[in-house]
Amino acid sequence: MAAELSPQLLSEKHRPTLDQALDAIRTRAYWSPHPEHPKAYGEGGAPGSLSAAEGKAAFDAVLNTRLGLGQPGTDGWTGGEVSPYGPELGVEYPHADLDVLLPAMRAGMPAWRAAGPETRALVCLEILARISARTHEFAHAVMHTSGQAFMMALQAGGPHAQDRGLEAVAYAYEEQIRTPRSADWSKPQGKRDPLRLQKSFTAAPRGISLLIGCNTFPTWNGYPGLFASLATGNPVLVKPHPRAVLPLALTVQLAREVLAEAGFDPDLVALAAERPGEGIAKTLALRPEIRIIDYTGSTAFGDWLEANARQAQVYTEKAGVNTIVLDSTDDYRGMLSNLAFSLSLYSGQMCTTPQNLLIPRDGITTDAGDKTYDEVVADIAAAVTGLLGDDARANALLGALVNPDVKARLEAAADLGEVALPSREVANPEFPDAVVRTPVVVKLDATKPDDEEHYLSECFGPVAFAVAVDSTADAVELLRRTVRDQGAMTVGAYTTSPEVERAVEDVCLDESAQLSLNLTGGVYVNQTAAFSDFHGSGGNPAANAALCDGAFVSNRFRMVEVRRQA
Amino acid sequence: MAAELSPQLLSEKHRPTLDQALDAIRTRAYWSPHPEHPKAYGEGGAPGSLSAAEGKAAFDAVLNTRLGLGQPGTDGWTGGEVSPYGPELGVEYPHADLDVLLPAMRAGMPAWRAAGPETRALVCLEILARISARTHEFAHAVMHTSGQAFMMALQAGGPHAQDRGLEAVAYAYEEQIRTPRSADWSKPQGKRDPLRLQKSFTAAPRGISLLIGCNTFPTWNGYPGLFASLATGNPVLVKPHPRAVLPLALTVQLAREVLAEAGFDPDLVALAAERPGEGIAKTLALRPEIRIIDYTGSTAFGDWLEANARQAQVYTEKAGVNTIVLDSTDDYRGMLSNLAFSLSLYSGQMCTTPQNLLIPRDGITTDAGDKTYDEVVADIAAAVTGLLGDDARANALLGALVNPDVKARLEAAADLGEVALPSREVANPEFPDAVVRTPVVVKLDATKPDDEEHYLSECFGPVAFAVAVDSTADAVELLRRTVRDQGAMTVGAYTTSPEVERAVEDVCLDESAQLSLNLTGGVYVNQTAAFSDFHGSGGNPAANAALCDGAFVSNRFRMVEVRRQA
Repeated sequence: MAAELSPQLLSEKHRPTLDQALDAIRTRAYWSPHPEHPKAYGEGGAPGSLSAAEGKAAFDAVLNTRLGLGQPGTDGWTGGEVSPYGPELGVEYPHADLDVLLPAMRAGMPAWRAAGPETRALVCLEILARISARTHEFAHAVMHTSGQAFMMALQAGGPHAQDRGLEAVAYAYEEQIRTPRSADWSKPQGKRDPLRLQKSFTAAPRGISLLIGCNTFPTWNGYPGLFASLATGNPVLVKPHPRAVLPLALTVQLAREVLAEAGFDPDLVALAAERPGEGIAKTLALRPEIRIIDYTGSTAFGDWLEANARQAQVYTEKAGVNTIVLDSTDDYRGMLSNLAFSLSLYSGQMCTTPQNLLIPRDGITTDAGDKTYDEVVADIAAAVTGLLGDDARANALLGALVNPDVKARLEAAADLGEVALPSREVANPEFPDAVVRTPVVVKLDATKPDDEEHYLSECFGPVAFAVAVDSTADAVELLRRTVRDQGAMTVGAYTTSPEVERAVEDVCLDESAQLSLNLTGGVYVNQTAAFSDFHGSGGNPAANAALCDGAFVSNRFRMVEVRRQA
Repeated sequence: MAAELSPQLLSEKHRPTLDQALDAIRTRAYWSPHPEHPKAYGEGGAPGSLSAAEGKAAFDAVLNTRLGLGQPGTDGWTGGEVSPYGPELGVEYPHADLDVLLPAMRAGMPAWRAAGPETRALVCLEILARISARTHEFAHAVMHTSGQAFMMALQAGGPHAQDRGLEAVAYAYEEQIRTPRSADWSKPQGKRDPLRLQKSFTAAPRGISLLIGCNTFPTWNGYPGLFASLATGNPVLVKPHPRAVLPLALTVQLAREVLAEAGFDPDLVALAAERPGEGIAKTLALRPEIRIIDYTGSTAFGDWLEANARQAQVYTEKAGVNTIVLDSTDDYRGMLSNLAFSLSLYSGQMCTTPQNLLIPRDGITTDAGDKTYDEVVADIAAAVTGLLGDDARANALLGALVNPDVKARLEAAADLGEVALPSREVANPEFPDAVVRTPVVVKLDATKPDDEEHYLSECFGPVAFAVAVDSTADAVELLRRTVRDQGAMTVGAYTTSPEVERAVEDVCLDESAQLSLNLTGGVYVNQTAAFSDFHGSGGNPAANAALCDGAFVSNRFRMVEVRRQA
């Protein structure tokens, strides 16, 4: 049977997009093929895409159903997701018999390998295009698993995640074609005939790649590893977080559909949903068939994976302590509003949200006059209060707390120091069971030994520490220690001093941290854009990989050479 | 003080070579800027290079001296190398106080980082050029530490090693410039002003890189890691094998000289020679300052490094079991002479030397008629005997056994099965103490359980096993099991059958092994050419990295981004 999606059709549809992506990662200029605006989808928008109403209807239709994926080795069904907004999703997923599923996943490898880098990239782009068309449906799925507010779930869970997936495909493609498919080699031998060899080079996948998904950004954090591995020829087994299965299950469904239509084995992508308390990630991670692992989550389990899954290449994003150094600014209002937004977005539940605000005890210089430590803290608190004063706006920014652990940490944070801004409970009229909370700001002191354990560990959730330091120089040194020992996904700084700017830059270069300087407008330290910004550095304890770079893709395959006498 | 080697001068001298290297790794065509012929050096040859006589004189002059490198933290002197050819070298090297040396090595990092990828690449090329000019001196140093015969020491230890170093520089440079140094990012916001950011990207080194050298190929196996790390901004601490210090000490000396002349801190490259029995590699590997490790040697220590040096990126080349599948040939004589050479070169002491010759019990089809297993083995034995019948030629091909362990293994091998070809002691008139031995060929049987432990482990040295198998299909399956479980640096096959060829290729693609098919002329399975051939695959147990590819360089630095509002 001829494939419905021929290489030629795929090339016509997607090669221009791939070329644009390749160009974007070289220039790092702004680019995205995935629209952010909700109205860009549906009638009059992207062809074949679901409108807001259609996406909602599609999401509603999947609730309380059994999501059959047609994958082999299903020995039962499991589910049990409860939305952070209250409702039970009621979706059931196949539970896999690994001894059946894993061999089935390997069966399609030779044909997928033989397809070559371009066809694999184009098939990946078709999968992403189908996901993109269903962005509104994914928005609800992400919202009701992560607790993100709808608009954020749509953008971060939709186009931004798709961008990160496409970026990984572009890197993977480029890495594989650095070596030609064949070469004629002729070595002169003086007066004798030259030595001649005909050489062929094939990107050979490592084996099954395991994606261990996270609760807060199932698609955004999941797509890079998934698509990097698939594009380099590896089957991908998706093990979602048990509270955030649906977005990745829908992804697996679409991937299987496209693979089959393109004439490949759909079992190259499969789902491994787990029964409550099963802890399947540890079992999977040690299976000899698993040769690559992508993981986002706790430092404890990330470290365990790195130490124990020795048969696999392990890419981890773990916890970090993100820091902002406040030294001086020529836009005090802009700084305050920028920081207030950064602290509030998704209730501080981003791996990139600032936690520690390092503020000199004697205050900072600003365009609005010198401000003492207490004034700065009070003004940040006021800015947060102002931003979140309206409940509708607060709900739209904060979303819901993703799980009870975050709520417990938030409540405990109020006892760690003087509370500069208490957390406020926000009612959500549409979802009365949603747990919505504004950030707490707690004052700590870098010179108090008891405070150190608080600001030198990650307190994931809507908790910010306003840490008093003796000087900007001390702030810079504390920044260095924090990044080196605890890691950081992001660092920010506000300063009008070239010397301070240089000192902070040097710390970030020395300790491999991504730095945002003097953000006072509509770009926030916690946001990164695919094709331009690196997410993490892979060089400090917060993550051993960056999204996306050569190192993220180059070891997912090996270049195998066959040489023959010519 | 202005640097003697300005960026402009370096660019004039070396940028064309860098560009050619970049082109070569893309086309994989034959290329080398380093001549193989001994007469290409000295008067009338490469400008400024030492002739054969001058190189020998330079080598003689360094014997029985103290090699001062001017590096800080020297707390004593050590040495004690004895040539496999007999003579004591009598060279003393600085012994390092790590608590002084390591911080000193880090001091030069910021300036080296700030120099950027191109300047670093060009400085590395100048180092390689100075090494190249002293190829004859290095030839003696490699010969009298590895036991390689002079011509091989000159070629493999000289131009071929320099090629591999240059190849690593080219990969490192290309990897770093995939991301531009800066970018303007402007994201449309509908009717509002676009969001604008100015972004800068810097390749930031990881930290001190440790090179743990090997006894057999101190420069060839050492240069890729050394130059990949240095070109990506990392200081490099060179810990040579205690029996093969001199070639790497001379390398360190030249690197320090060039760094200083180019205005950089010479302590970016330093030597860590060890006292007898000190076992300094383990101590160094666990130092927090060490962030990258390159290692060639035993599987046991390589595995230990991978498991324990968790603070570092670890690149290892370990043991493997290299296999040749003999199915059929249309050039029986060519096959025999090619195999005889492969088994004999450097007494089989190459990580790429074939060990197991898998031969169907019922024989193989050839252009000289069908040959039984016994005939094939006898003919291989005869080919080796013929090749090495003349003592002068035998000495020139075999070199000396590198250490007593190899000799002991060779002697023990004769008891493992029926000896098809006994090892012969060859006298070396120039160096009567050299231990020179021809290869032993031992018959084993794949169906005998007792033989398995022999052919499924590496027997490093001049030992080949002619393993009888029931069929070519069984040979292919044994090949698969061998590569998967034991690893392999090389695989070879002789067959006229497209089906068998395809089956062997599939195994190599599935298990990531580099395959040479039907070599009957002047290219041997144990030789790889920089810029064209991959050495190892990094995808089977013999090595976790390949020389050289993107994965070998991309994680030696991290891309650090600084973004500012525009």
